[in-house]
Formats: sequence, structure tokens, C-alpha cells
Amino acid sequence: MKIVMTYGTFDLFHIGHLNLLERLAELGDKLIVGVSTDEFNQEKGKQCLYSYQERARIVGALKCVDKVIPENNWQQKQQDIIEHKVDLFGMGNDWQGKFDNLQDLCEVIYLSRTPTISTTQLKLSLAKIDPQTIQKMKQGLDSVLDIVKALE
Amino acid sequence: MKIVMTYGTFDLFHIGHLNLLERLAELGDKLIVGVSTDEFNQEKGKQCLYSYQERARIVGALKCVDKVIPENNWQQKQQDIIEHKVDLFGMGNDWQGKFDNLQDLCEVIYLSRTPTISTTQLKLSLAKIDPQTIQKMKQGLDSVLDIVKALE
Repeated sequence: MKIVMTYGTFDLFHIGHLNLLERLAELGDKLIVGVSTDEFNQEKGKQCLYSYQERARIVGALKCVDKVIPENNWQQKQQDIIEHKVDLFGMGNDWQGKFDNLQDLCEVIYLSRTPTISTTQLKLSLAKIDPQTIQKMKQGLDSVLDIVKALE
Repeated sequence: MKIVMTYGTFDLFHIGHLNLLERLAELGDKLIVGVSTDEFNQEKGKQCLYSYQERARIVGALKCVDKVIPENNWQQKQQDIIEHKVDLFGMGNDWQGKFDNLQDLCEVIYLSRTPTISTTQLKLSLAKIDPQTIQKMKQGLDSVLDIVKALE
């Protein structure tokens, strides 16, 4: 039984997230995902649209994911690897080399991200949106700014 | 074996989508989801950020979903219900009464949407976003407008 583990925030869940998780799942028998908590994201200065509860529920609802645990800090990975008997730690290669220190505990790999998603695919998506819709989105963001100001 | 069916676009997958799909899945043994194709959305005048292929893959990757089929037009539902031996047709209650004509073929229900997602939850999410981030999003949309113009 080969156990694979990864970590992430998974805000605004998209096909790039799914690609990475499905590819990691294929590398073992069980995939555990650490989802960053709201408190940890705040510490990182990362703004999320969706709460930890929502992000974790979506990730945990995927067929390729066997277990979700909260990621509360940078230091817990060593302990998680030991506790969950992790064989393979995998991240997207935007983190290349950043977790090599975990190689004492398990195999560490960095998967290439799907570049078609972030460039060609995005451009194709954008080509489908008419400028009027984007204007409406901008107007929507103006309303959001008003609400945020009112909440302050 | 009770077969449940629903339809939708599922662009920008969020917790409201998951809530609806998981509740529908609980009402039967198998959940089939018709995902609107890009051509059908275009016909409806509906703009999507993600392609049919991406939206269908995310929905199909969920534990609660057993099968995804393309939704190509308004008329196919009768045929789908017969072909897939559907016992229960369910939609969110923003469609209340709109599919009562299918009651000759199977049970039809409209599920209440989770209002906490669209109002309280959204406001809570907005409160977490600082105005600077929203300004950056607006600048991002300006770049998008430029790309769209360049693609025209």
C-alpha cells in the first residue's frame, strides 16, 4: 500500500487542481491532501474567496482523494509524513526543490503543471467572453468594493 | 436501484454545486449529471469561463456522481429519462415548476438552494478580501479586456 501526500489551498477549484490530484493519486494507492486553513493562509498573506470548510469539502468530495487533513503551518509536514506513513510527497513544480529536506523521510517529487491550462486554454476561454461581460464583471467588482467598504 | 438525474452548467465549481449534487445523490443509488455543452450555452446566451470538457471532468471526478452526459439542447430530457431509466429528476428550486411536464415519465423534485452560500457566506467571504486585492482583480480584468480586444 503506497501512500501519497500533497498540500495546497485549492481556492476556486479548477481543472489544474484536478489534473495534479489525479496524477498524484495514480502514483500510489491512497492520496492524502493537506488543505491550508484560513488562519494559515492569513499568516501567508494569501487571500481566499472560499473558506477552509468549503475548500476542504470540495477536495474531499473527489474520487481520487482518500483523506483531507488541515494544514495549519509550514512545520507539520515531517510529522504528517511519519503519522500517515507517507511513501511519496508530491507537489507542483512551482515548488521545485523547496521540500527536498523531506527526502530523509520519503520520496519527494515535483510534477510539471499543465501549461495548456494557464496559457492557451485561458486565451481560448477569454476569446469566448465578450467585452460586455467583462465590463459587467468590473461593475460587479465595484459593488464588491462598496460592500467591503460598508463592512469595514 | 433508484436512478437520479440532474442538469447544469457547473462553471466555476463551488460548494453550492456540491451541496446540490450530494443531496441529489443521497436520494437514490446512482446520480447521472447532464452538463451543458459550450454550444448549448452559447445558444442560451450563457458565457462560461471553463470549457465543457473541463466542467464535465470536474463533475465526473466527484464521488457522488456516477455518470456525466452532455446536455445539447432543451428537448433531450424526455429521451434521457427513458434511455437511462431515471426514477427521479431533481433541480434547484430556481427552476421551480419548469420541468413539471416530466412528471409523466418520473418523479420530479426541486431542492431548495443553500441560501447561506449566496448571501451570508458571500458577505463573510467578501469581508476577508481587502480592497487592494479587489483593485488588483479590476486591473486584471483590464488586462483581460486588452487580450479580448487583441483576439477580436
